[in-house]
Amino acid sequence: MQAIDDFLAESQSRIIEELKAFLRIPSISADPAFQPSVREAATFVAERLAELGCTAQLVETQGNPIVLGRSPRGPNAPTILVYGHYDVQPAMKEDGWETEPFEPTIKGDAIYARGATDDKGQLYTHIKSVEAWKATGTPLPVNLIFVIEGEEEIGSNNLEIFLDEYRDELACDVAVISDTSQYAPGIPAITYGLRGIIACEITITGPRQDLHSGVFGGAVANPINELCRLVATLHDADGRIAIEGFYDTVRPLADSERAQFAALPFDETAFLQDLGVAASAGEKGFSTLERRWARPTCDVNGIYGGYTGAGPKTIVPSRATAKITCRLVPDQDPHQIVESLENHFKKHASPGVTLQFMSQHGAPAVVFDPNSPHMAAAKSAITTAFGAEPVFIREGGSIPVVESLQRILGVDTMLLGWGQNSDNLHGPNEHFSLTDFHRGTRASAHLWAELARQSQ
Amino acid sequence: MQAIDDFLAESQSRIIEELKAFLRIPSISADPAFQPSVREAATFVAERLAELGCTAQLVETQGNPIVLGRSPRGPNAPTILVYGHYDVQPAMKEDGWETEPFEPTIKGDAIYARGATDDKGQLYTHIKSVEAWKATGTPLPVNLIFVIEGEEEIGSNNLEIFLDEYRDELACDVAVISDTSQYAPGIPAITYGLRGIIACEITITGPRQDLHSGVFGGAVANPINELCRLVATLHDADGRIAIEGFYDTVRPLADSERAQFAALPFDETAFLQDLGVAASAGEKGFSTLERRWARPTCDVNGIYGGYTGAGPKTIVPSRATAKITCRLVPDQDPHQIVESLENHFKKHASPGVTLQFMSQHGAPAVVFDPNSPHMAAAKSAITTAFGAEPVFIREGGSIPVVESLQRILGVDTMLLGWGQNSDNLHGPNEHFSLTDFHRGTRASAHLWAELARQSQ
Repeated sequence: MQAIDDFLAESQSRIIEELKAFLRIPSISADPAFQPSVREAATFVAERLAELGCTAQLVETQGNPIVLGRSPRGPNAPTILVYGHYDVQPAMKEDGWETEPFEPTIKGDAIYARGATDDKGQLYTHIKSVEAWKATGTPLPVNLIFVIEGEEEIGSNNLEIFLDEYRDELACDVAVISDTSQYAPGIPAITYGLRGIIACEITITGPRQDLHSGVFGGAVANPINELCRLVATLHDADGRIAIEGFYDTVRPLADSERAQFAALPFDETAFLQDLGVAASAGEKGFSTLERRWARPTCDVNGIYGGYTGAGPKTIVPSRATAKITCRLVPDQDPHQIVESLENHFKKHASPGVTLQFMSQHGAPAVVFDPNSPHMAAAKSAITTAFGAEPVFIREGGSIPVVESLQRILGVDTMLLGWGQNSDNLHGPNEHFSLTDFHRGTRASAHLWAELARQSQ
Repeated sequence: MQAIDDFLAESQSRIIEELKAFLRIPSISADPAFQPSVREAATFVAERLAELGCTAQLVETQGNPIVLGRSPRGPNAPTILVYGHYDVQPAMKEDGWETEPFEPTIKGDAIYARGATDDKGQLYTHIKSVEAWKATGTPLPVNLIFVIEGEEEIGSNNLEIFLDEYRDELACDVAVISDTSQYAPGIPAITYGLRGIIACEITITGPRQDLHSGVFGGAVANPINELCRLVATLHDADGRIAIEGFYDTVRPLADSERAQFAALPFDETAFLQDLGVAASAGEKGFSTLERRWARPTCDVNGIYGGYTGAGPKTIVPSRATAKITCRLVPDQDPHQIVESLENHFKKHASPGVTLQFMSQHGAPAVVFDPNSPHMAAAKSAITTAFGAEPVFIREGGSIPVVESLQRILGVDTMLLGWGQNSDNLHGPNEHFSLTDFHRGTRASAHLWAELARQSQ
């Protein structure tokens, strides 16, 4: 591995020049005007893979092409799927950028450009690690499959179709994604769990039209008051969700996991101050990290009804609507949770109004064994490259591809984030630490060795 | 009185022609383009009064002039203030009118025109009753003060200023307004009570900006959930308002009043069907009429917060707002109720959010003694003219001028509605029964005699 480390150290400036070329391509998937650049970025990735002796093709979809790459297959070697995306969020200098978003600029230790960390910079580490193995004359000890899509920033609408269709060709032992962050500066992390989600919308209808609140107020149920009453029934006084059966299948947090979360440095005061809230809130008996990562929620995301203009208007409104999402944890079944919610509302709705319930989408939570051999391999590789043991964390959001990979290909995903929470992805002045970029590349190169060793 | 009755019977068609001339003036106060017509209508009223030997002036205001008329003063006669308004709601044929809104048309027993019932037709009865006395050579037995304004449909912004300024000149014993409806066809009514109102708005703010519901959901209080919880605390399971002190000063409904309401024909099934609701709702232990007319309410008129577009959006919103009005009954003090509401929200708000409370306006309820000599006079006059005893009712809305007259001039108002609930005021095809118009004029003429008699 010394040769590989040396090669990477010597190649730093050249690799950064390559990354700059990648970052110069404004592959904004959200804006049709950038279609040619989107395709150019896909081609860039395919060409870099081809240079390393990989097969590489652009798989056409209804939308942007998916780059499917494959390293030369070695017998008896484990197969790893690397997922990433070459498309980026929109960016314009006027949004508050200090430099041109598509003219990568190095300031201090960081490279500033749209896509620097999300996800061009991070995915590039896994391509350059392959180069390091090739350049030093050692056969790559694993089979790599690269799946680099171009629609992550617009919903990955064609990814599942692709995974389904190429299911056999994509057979692998584990997946690796570098599209998240370290826990904090100096504290690399492996994310091994994500929450799931369900979304629904309820509309309460009372009178067929808005009524004069003087003439009719007091005679009929007010749909907004009713909706609020229903929403208020969702939680008890301890912040627990009061929907029948909601917690029935929730896998309890292991003591070891709670201890592990508790051991993480977390400055709650600074966290709350940053959000602008005076006190934390939520389910009693769980820490803030536990509530964010590993406990289910039921949040109203939007509400509207009646008169919403300036000043008062004296009506009993005809209807009111609330948009609600629940974050799920293992082993909650999204369909069952949607059903529980619907039953809950039906049970609590008053006879003076009608209830309309619509559910919109759902994905279960995922959690992988942090003690698996694959995770051990990642831990070892990261420790070597970053000079610090990674912490094992979970995240509160969903990353749909992770659930798709689990469901369609039956594999765990290791989320190995090389970025920092402060990298401003999606915002102006997105950047990526060059130190982290190099460490990530080195960790990737070591990961292939470690995974090969674990599988023996 | 026979001579007066005969005169009115003989003059019917001429009086209707006069009313038509009044209705042809498009005195739409809401639209500045109709300013000249608004003034023309004021002049029309003043001229009609002057013809009858009344003094009549246009009192200029910051807005439209107020017609101030006064019958020749008789010594020892009671003084009655007649309030009405010469301005009308907007109307265009395209809104669904079958005839031109400002070309009065008689179909069957009714005259169709904007303002036919609200309020030109109704106020005109009190002018023509004066003519009947004059024409029959009998001195009017009361002193009448006419206050006919031109901004009722746009908020009567200058009326209170006028009442304040002319307070001494307007000194009177009682006020009469014909700008409401009979209880039902064949059932004339005297409205002797109106609910009051207070309005407020609360905004709950949590994080300084919308947060990702995956990353932060469960960690901080959700302002919409919080707002709903607060709104839900406003009522108990029996539909009673659960604000501390809210009912402290509420004057209980007298048994006689409850019996009187219960005796009114009221088809609750038809009422609910008309509104499109399956069941009535509200404070337990009170009938629907009691809840509409004589019990306080607390209704959310509008609510908004978070994402209100199509589909889901996974955020913990930064803020949410509810607009709330309470209808008040005697002897609730609006200021005290606003204070109770604010205290209620402060007491129940959780420490994880901030509460902003704004109160917007308030007016106390009014209720007059239905057994006063003035009411007896009105009852007698209406019984004679309509051939049916009027029922005594209350209304759930507010009519601000009534409270202003009570507060500024210290007088009761008798709301003598000649119209019907089905007259479509404010809508297309507004109309007024000619039979009711004539009965109203006759009732007005008799009212002056009855009031004079009662005061002796």
